[in-house]
Amino acid sequence: MLEILSKNNQKVKDACALRMKKVRQEKGLFLMEGIKNLDMALRFGIVKQIFTSIGLPKLKQDIECYKVNDEVLHKLSSSENPEGVVFVCEQLKPKKDKKDYHKIVYLDQINDPGNLGTILRTAVAFNYDAVILSKSSVDLYNEKVVAASKGALFLIDAFYDDIENYVNGYQIIVSALDEAVSLDTIKKPKDFVLVLGNESHGVSSETLKLANTIVKIDMNDDIDSLNVAVAGGILMNYFK
Amino acid sequence: MLEILSKNNQKVKDACALRMKKVRQEKGLFLMEGIKNLDMALRFGIVKQIFTSIGLPKLKQDIECYKVNDEVLHKLSSSENPEGVVFVCEQLKPKKDKKDYHKIVYLDQINDPGNLGTILRTAVAFNYDAVILSKSSVDLYNEKVVAASKGALFLIDAFYDDIENYVNGYQIIVSALDEAVSLDTIKKPKDFVLVLGNESHGVSSETLKLANTIVKIDMNDDIDSLNVAVAGGILMNYFK
Repeated sequence: MLEILSKNNQKVKDACALRMKKVRQEKGLFLMEGIKNLDMALRFGIVKQIFTSIGLPKLKQDIECYKVNDEVLHKLSSSENPEGVVFVCEQLKPKKDKKDYHKIVYLDQINDPGNLGTILRTAVAFNYDAVILSKSSVDLYNEKVVAASKGALFLIDAFYDDIENYVNGYQIIVSALDEAVSLDTIKKPKDFVLVLGNESHGVSSETLKLANTIVKIDMNDDIDSLNVAVAGGILMNYFK
Repeated sequence: MLEILSKNNQKVKDACALRMKKVRQEKGLFLMEGIKNLDMALRFGIVKQIFTSIGLPKLKQDIECYKVNDEVLHKLSSSENPEGVVFVCEQLKPKKDKKDYHKIVYLDQINDPGNLGTILRTAVAFNYDAVILSKSSVDLYNEKVVAASKGALFLIDAFYDDIENYVNGYQIIVSALDEAVSLDTIKKPKDFVLVLGNESHGVSSETLKLANTIVKIDMNDDIDSLNVAVAGGILMNYFK
């Protein structure tokens, strides 16, 4: 295995550049770290390049692999206590045909990477078919999204698209507080899109116009709203 | 109003020292920021000292108040875009008598401040009486807890105590995956303690022994678990 001892090495610099959304989008790549994630990524055949400071089992696939020291690893990792392996992956492609989507989560301008990662994890847990994001939402391959998703990114179709493309054939259920009906009164539809809004502003007025059902979770008036990942969890569980 | 123009001023240093858990505990104080939080804190009468770079309405209470420049404010604030006001508060005291607690959330070694803040917010939303933490849990007055709680910290009794003190008179419902029954099959008890565990290790074996009911949320096997704030949200909503 080739060794890289300088954090100014061009391969290291190129990998670190993937922390920037623009570079990720241009190259169709992203950074991951950790042994469990590597295991998953290898299984999905998306690993392009590995940087490691620890021993790894022999790889079946032919992948560019570099032995690095702790200084280089810390430069590559976004974790305070990196697990010893950082790697470059190709961005994931949808696994299902769109016509086979029955349960979709649509995120309207979601902003916080931790929330997005948590929502991906919840969507997998409750067997949703896809998490679709409005184009103004946070980047799916942001390192904090990848970390919070705990591997869920691999297990669900997730991509950017306009909600208008999912209006036909789906019941559009929007989570909002005004003019909404209580969750407990709603029957689970067969094919639906569950829409969650921005952390501060909720669902945009354009998206709200497309709603067939506006739903709210009954709660104490003392508090403005639930965290979007928590509200999403309650709704995804209800409609699972 | 007195003006502070140096970030080395002793008042500023003393306030910044409240970022350390040890100092918060010694002094019984903590730091908050933002206009909405200030409004709440004033209403609860816990504000000791205000540092502001913006105009504030005249205060009814007699509080130490300092005009600061942007440099000082940035030193005091833990936000990237501070709202112009940082202030020192006394730690909150429980508002209810313990014998009036009917619905309690108990956090067994919770570790992540964002999760704790989110759980406080959810507990208020669903009218829980108290959030009690095992002594090894993250500090309630950590700035990330305060931020994620979005004011919920003011609205619910939250403190550290041993779960053994809540065994009599309460149904102990523990969220865990092994030997658990499905949530949907459980009736809501009158007085209960809902126990949520650590992000990585779940509920400790000592706490598990005290359980009257072990409950799980049914989900896809492909994923290990839900985020604890999401699982907590689903459970708190179910038992609300």
